[in-house]
Amino acid sequence: MVSQSFRNDYSEGAAPEILQALVDTNFEQTVGYTEGDPYCERARELVRNVCGAPDAMVEFCIGGTSANLICVNGLLRDWEGVLCAADAHINVHETGAIAATGRTVLTTRDDDAFVSVEELERVWQRQTSTGRHMTLPRLVYLTDSTEFGGVWTRARFDAVCDWADAHRCAVYVDGARLANALSAEGADLSLRHIASRVAALTLGGTKNGMLFGEAVLINHPRLKEAFPFLQKERGGLLAKGRLLGAQFQAALEGGEGEGLWWRLARHANRMASELRTGLLELGYEAFSDSPTNQQFFTVPAETGQRFCDEFGCEVFDTLPDGRWVVRFVSSWATKPEAVAEVIELAGTLAR
Amino acid sequence: MVSQSFRNDYSEGAAPEILQALVDTNFEQTVGYTEGDPYCERARELVRNVCGAPDAMVEFCIGGTSANLICVNGLLRDWEGVLCAADAHINVHETGAIAATGRTVLTTRDDDAFVSVEELERVWQRQTSTGRHMTLPRLVYLTDSTEFGGVWTRARFDAVCDWADAHRCAVYVDGARLANALSAEGADLSLRHIASRVAALTLGGTKNGMLFGEAVLINHPRLKEAFPFLQKERGGLLAKGRLLGAQFQAALEGGEGEGLWWRLARHANRMASELRTGLLELGYEAFSDSPTNQQFFTVPAETGQRFCDEFGCEVFDTLPDGRWVVRFVSSWATKPEAVAEVIELAGTLAR
Amino acid sequence: MVSQSFRNDYSEGAAPEILQALVDTNFEQTVGYTEGDPYCERARELVRNVCGAPDAMVEFCIGGTSANLICVNGLLRDWEGVLCAADAHINVHETGAIAATGRTVLTTRDDDAFVSVEELERVWQRQTSTGRHMTLPRLVYLTDSTEFGGVWTRARFDAVCDWADAHRCAVYVDGARLANALSAEGADLSLRHIASRVAALTLGGTKNGMLFGEAVLINHPRLKEAFPFLQKERGGLLAKGRLLGAQFQAALEGGEGEGLWWRLARHANRMASELRTGLLELGYEAFSDSPTNQQFFTVPAETGQRFCDEFGCEVFDTLPDGRWVVRFVSSWATKPEAVAEVIELAGTLAR
Amino acid sequence: MVSQSFRNDYSEGAAPEILQALVDTNFEQTVGYTEGDPYCERARELVRNVCGAPDAMVEFCIGGTSANLICVNGLLRDWEGVLCAADAHINVHETGAIAATGRTVLTTRDDDAFVSVEELERVWQRQTSTGRHMTLPRLVYLTDSTEFGGVWTRARFDAVCDWADAHRCAVYVDGARLANALSAEGADLSLRHIASRVAALTLGGTKNGMLFGEAVLINHPRLKEAFPFLQKERGGLLAKGRLLGAQFQAALEGGEGEGLWWRLARHANRMASELRTGLLELGYEAFSDSPTNQQFFTVPAETGQRFCDEFGCEVFDTLPDGRWVVRFVSSWATKPEAVAEVIELAGTLAR
Repeated sequence: MVSQSFRNDYSEGAAPEILQALVDTNFEQTVGYTEGDPYCERARELVRNVCGAPDAMVEFCIGGTSANLICVNGLLRDWEGVLCAADAHINVHETGAIAATGRTVLTTRDDDAFVSVEELERVWQRQTSTGRHMTLPRLVYLTDSTEFGGVWTRARFDAVCDWADAHRCAVYVDGARLANALSAEGADLSLRHIASRVAALTLGGTKNGMLFGEAVLINHPRLKEAFPFLQKERGGLLAKGRLLGAQFQAALEGGEGEGLWWRLARHANRMASELRTGLLELGYEAFSDSPTNQQFFTVPAETGQRFCDEFGCEVFDTLPDGRWVVRFVSSWATKPEAVAEVIELAGTLAR
Repeated sequence: MVSQSFRNDYSEGAAPEILQALVDTNFEQTVGYTEGDPYCERARELVRNVCGAPDAMVEFCIGGTSANLICVNGLLRDWEGVLCAADAHINVHETGAIAATGRTVLTTRDDDAFVSVEELERVWQRQTSTGRHMTLPRLVYLTDSTEFGGVWTRARFDAVCDWADAHRCAVYVDGARLANALSAEGADLSLRHIASRVAALTLGGTKNGMLFGEAVLINHPRLKEAFPFLQKERGGLLAKGRLLGAQFQAALEGGEGEGLWWRLARHANRMASELRTGLLELGYEAFSDSPTNQQFFTVPAETGQRFCDEFGCEVFDTLPDGRWVVRFVSSWATKPEAVAEVIELAGTLAR
Repeated sequence: MVSQSFRNDYSEGAAPEILQALVDTNFEQTVGYTEGDPYCERARELVRNVCGAPDAMVEFCIGGTSANLICVNGLLRDWEGVLCAADAHINVHETGAIAATGRTVLTTRDDDAFVSVEELERVWQRQTSTGRHMTLPRLVYLTDSTEFGGVWTRARFDAVCDWADAHRCAVYVDGARLANALSAEGADLSLRHIASRVAALTLGGTKNGMLFGEAVLINHPRLKEAFPFLQKERGGLLAKGRLLGAQFQAALEGGEGEGLWWRLARHANRMASELRTGLLELGYEAFSDSPTNQQFFTVPAETGQRFCDEFGCEVFDTLPDGRWVVRFVSSWATKPEAVAEVIELAGTLAR
Repeated sequence: MVSQSFRNDYSEGAAPEILQALVDTNFEQTVGYTEGDPYCERARELVRNVCGAPDAMVEFCIGGTSANLICVNGLLRDWEGVLCAADAHINVHETGAIAATGRTVLTTRDDDAFVSVEELERVWQRQTSTGRHMTLPRLVYLTDSTEFGGVWTRARFDAVCDWADAHRCAVYVDGARLANALSAEGADLSLRHIASRVAALTLGGTKNGMLFGEAVLINHPRLKEAFPFLQKERGGLLAKGRLLGAQFQAALEGGEGEGLWWRLARHANRMASELRTGLLELGYEAFSDSPTNQQFFTVPAETGQRFCDEFGCEVFDTLPDGRWVVRFVSSWATKPEAVAEVIELAGTLAR
């Protein structure tokens, strides 16, 4: 292993400003459980402001799976289901967390980690063809940026939201890497616009320089009622809740574009962009079109193995022709020198 | 409110040594999810050592409800139930978290927050009288120290474990305040002895000077298999798992009695003892016999109100005669001056 | 064993008129799943008529546990709970069926199988004292007739409904033996009145001369939406649904008081009344005040054993003084000769 | 609608012999819940005999969804999943019943309603690639005959069982139409052989001339322990259990091949075969290769509409070219004249 790993964006602790916020507030006594301490209250205000959603509820979760399972559970009744791409995090990487709450995941056949209106419609038609005998779809789950680093355009997003509106489905955006999507070059979808159309969305902190934490913005009346209870019931409520408030306050003060949350994501994206450009120039083949901090390349197996050994890359797929799809993830902590090391090694390997 | 609140033992951040451990390790890159980083591995070793359980599995949870619901769920099959006192934390204070995983809580009528062999036997007889038509008890849940600050003696604990063995029930100890129980004056029940008899136990960190975190020691083969999956499935797995490892390492280095975990608890107990002695000397009536950091007093309502206003006390019950049961909780952060303030004010109030 | 067992009211098949309805309709082809066949449609109309509830939804279940778990689940959200007496069927005799759907049972300390306003209020106060940290009560569960054969008076029922209205709780009546309650001597609570105040109620058929079947009358909008889906999802939907419709049609044609459902229950009650009178005259001690088809007597153990051996009685409790509480259940099929046999034997035993 | 509907095989009541068994035993008093009455005991013996499984447990369910959800739930732990074809009944037609018990359905991409070893292996590889972060497959679900009327050959079945053995997965056979599969022309897979390799299997009665009922043969030790409790907990236990015993006794007396269960299925298959032959001779295009009582044809929409109108056919799919896939289902009750009517009409329509 060389100087830095590109395994993922949660390999380090926290950005220094975030950690300092915890040090600074350490000895204050506050009420627990995010229930009214000044840090959570201020962070709530900041989230509402950057989302342009003065009436929304804002809550704080420890991690993404916890946020996802609470929101999906709370937005659905026992017999309803959530529509998502087959590669969606909730379908593949969360150990059946949705089913563990009794709800059903209904996957489309989209293979690019976006969901398309065509596939939503196809699954909807099937699932509503025999009434009560099938799980009723009532929610669409999106990730922005997607599992493959893609960014939702406003047009694409609106098309899905329009479809959802027309089919009485709510929309939930898993924003584990939302800061990266919003900060991506060419991105035309704003936080305010997303917030204006969804039942709920998360603003990820864990993968963007916080020790842990996802803020959840909730518009949907049913989820507003459900969330506080479900969070406790599902074991997702932090006793020292102000730790979440203090971190999000430090991340969001300064506001859209200027705050730390945006600056950290821009840095991660920039490092990814340099890495991508470097590898493309060397003749490497990108697996997906990603302007964010996850970069996927299709490489010969032996090259993939070296990337894994040296930079902690993960293998996302093995293709029929034997080549590997490997992932490089940059973060707030990635150094330009580390990117240079990747490119330098890459120059010596088969592509 | 005067200088310090006695509301609970999770009002502050972390003990300085704990926080420093996070600062010191902040920029290291490690694997995630507690899955093999050096801090978790060392902390696991330390937990096994102080428990005298070299073959146990050790995992780390973010909070007590998460640990409880994973362990109880994992130790029971779908139709089985957990026996506990009616006042048990899992029965009263966790929003139906056990039922949310599909398992049933079966309460005894013990009114002192301990469970007794007599009551266990009574409930057992009833629940096994018609076979499949009733929930089958297969687990006993204990808290040490108890909800009312009591400490399990070795004799009492062994009697319950013997009963459980004879009835094919496992035993789970919720140790949210276990350090306080082990450090209590006159305590005769050792961590090693507890660990030798239970299916699983937790060593609480959240209420003993850590930012968050409960270590779980697991002896039961079924739970060893279940825990890793259930933790992810229930949203209880921390991405930056090494935060838990680093904190428990800092807490447990030094070993039994000498390590920070014991020293912090002893301090909290000492503060509680001073407060208790002071109030008893003033003629106040203790509600329960507690040698740990939770002290309960039965007081006139107006006195209770002052304690709540000045020291953040919580009201645990309102008696038929109108008096209140109020709780004072001390912690690693409680200052002797604050205790003195309580006693000083108490001297001026009706008892 | 002598000529007839008093073990329970589901020992035989069906009343002849019920069975004949199945024979008569056997070769007709209908749609399945209770979804529109003429028998279910007619039975729905009859249920609505006798309940005076033209806008209610009527569905048909195979058994009581299935009906109870669907209704309780459908009337509660994931974090909410159902209030009931500790002896309630859903708390004791259904193997944790409510918890298996993720909902929590909250028991009062009422010891007569009724729930009282005082106890409802006590549990409510406790459960709402810390907000999201406790299961929120949102439903009251009643059985009429009760587990001990008691009958709800209109005053008692209205008091509970008034309390529930004032606390935003719905009311659900488990009517497994409702026909017996409505037909009991001195009963002042009508089916129409019950139907006018509850979210849902069941009209039991299994214990009143049908092969199987409970009709469910649903007033609550949320349950109207939920029931059809939940019934399928929980495995409670009968493929040949018309079997339920045909039986309930045969049971209810003739209308309130005149229909078979009432006549069968009156017979069962009459047999129970003769048995009760006979035993009381012999000096036996009744355990509960029951004007319905379940009769409980407190007897010496050796007498209890004889009743069990000869008449299939069940033992409901063993008292501290060693005496047994035994239950005699009469049904539509009980013959006067069998009652006479009980009394004859009873005359020869110690009381 | 003409003389008889081909909508499904549960449109009528029961075969006369089955109904007579209920009439004959109606007034006997037996214990409830399938727990030891003579009819259930005899039916258990018969099931064990025809399956060649003297040590198996045999239980009786009211319907297929109930049997499926109990078996799948009982064979899996909370975080485990069941592998099946995307068109599997549990995945499509049971309203998320598996997820409602907390377990996850993992579908292959097989499009013929069989599961293939290749697809099982592919899904297995994916699901075990990151340990606890994904649902662990531990069960394979098969239907025989399949959703499209296909019959498992012994070679195909053994290949899947071999794969399952090698991957520590159990196998569960949903035999809702098992009698049709076993009785199909050319079938080489025996009931004994299936029973020798599976964790559990069902012998369907509902779709083969019984009022209702599926017998479940259980080999797996964990399911033997779980089934009785789960059946009660999930609301799937019939109070008058002997109704199931009496029906299965009537169906199975006579033994393999000779008993009513086989004779009824052979009749249904024969009717289907005549219909199939007739339509193929007329130039109709079969959608699937089915030697059992479900026949699927691809027809012009207007022809499909006529079949639906006249014979109650269901539309299974609408193809991109606008043609429909319609299903004809024959049963024990189907008359040759009705088949002739189908063929007669078909001769007049566009194919």
